[in-house]
Amino acid sequence: MYMQRKSFGKMSCPIARSLERVGEWWSILIIRDALHGFTRFDEFQKSLNIAPNILTRRLSALVDAGLFQRRRYSERPPRYEYILTEKGRDFRPVIVAMFAWGNRHFAPEGASVLLVDKKTQRAADPVLVDRRSGRPLNERDFAFAAGPAASQRTRRRYALIQQKQISAKQSSRRVRGSLHGGKRTA
Amino acid sequence: MYMQRKSFGKMSCPIARSLERVGEWWSILIIRDALHGFTRFDEFQKSLNIAPNILTRRLSALVDAGLFQRRRYSERPPRYEYILTEKGRDFRPVIVAMFAWGNRHFAPEGASVLLVDKKTQRAADPVLVDRRSGRPLNERDFAFAAGPAASQRTRRRYALIQQKQISAKQSSRRVRGSLHGGKRTA
Repeated sequence: MYMQRKSFGKMSCPIARSLERVGEWWSILIIRDALHGFTRFDEFQKSLNIAPNILTRRLSALVDAGLFQRRRYSERPPRYEYILTEKGRDFRPVIVAMFAWGNRHFAPEGASVLLVDKKTQRAADPVLVDRRSGRPLNERDFAFAAGPAASQRTRRRYALIQQKQISAKQSSRRVRGSLHGGKRTA
Repeated sequence: MYMQRKSFGKMSCPIARSLERVGEWWSILIIRDALHGFTRFDEFQKSLNIAPNILTRRLSALVDAGLFQRRRYSERPPRYEYILTEKGRDFRPVIVAMFAWGNRHFAPEGASVLLVDKKTQRAADPVLVDRRSGRPLNERDFAFAAGPAASQRTRRRYALIQQKQISAKQSSRRVRGSLHGGKRTA
């Protein structure tokens, strides 16, 4: 398990690097609870019904990863609370995207949880857009590509991916073309 | 481990339900690769440098969860490819949100991967907004709340959370008020 972590650290993919920090159920649920305002060990434990030793380990890992800060709130006995750092709070969009996906696909009985406008109590429908243009970041229009800091390996990887996607598009066009009796467009 | 899974299934939180399907590094990276166009066992294996038995197990779990479909592409020898279902493809916003978080906080050397406009090659800056109003879903304006299908337990939970957030706001106002020599506003 530790070996997996180590090898993840060498990967330049920002998704892999994110997972290295929080890629585990409990960590993400602890962040969820912290975003809800929970800060104390017993609050997390009660909310998650998690074994104390696992919670201790997870909180330490989240502190080490810079997502939580430990703060003493009682001198005698010494007691600590766990406060999200800016980096930790900034994980919220991932939580919101997971929430929306869960509600869309795994809530046949209807939504148990909603994200609501605090003023109007109206439910929001989360969608990812480009901040500048406001355009939805759908697959048709936006693709992952190697960035300025990409290694040779990453560049080769995305060149291959781009090629795969072009050929997949061409072969689906050929299929459509022949289905509709049209000419091959590729 | 299996017990954890079972207890998760009883939870009504859509984030917990989502994690039950994909709450594990490899699964999320397999979905990432599939969104990149990879479909075959050896493609995933080469990309992730993952042990074959782990990949087999993960792909089966993803098929069982309805995120992938297994399709035979060769009769002799029998060979299968793994295609994302609609539910699986719809996980993309979570991947994009993770990608953006990783790039913001864990890429000190600059971005290795970007999400680019396919036409202009310009990098997008992902932000979650409400589909109807276009307003950013930030913490100040939007909060999680119990939905129509919420259980008593979930209702109690979110009532408690709301109360915690109100009192946290009041105490931070009191602190600000006394710092600036103003009156207590609570």
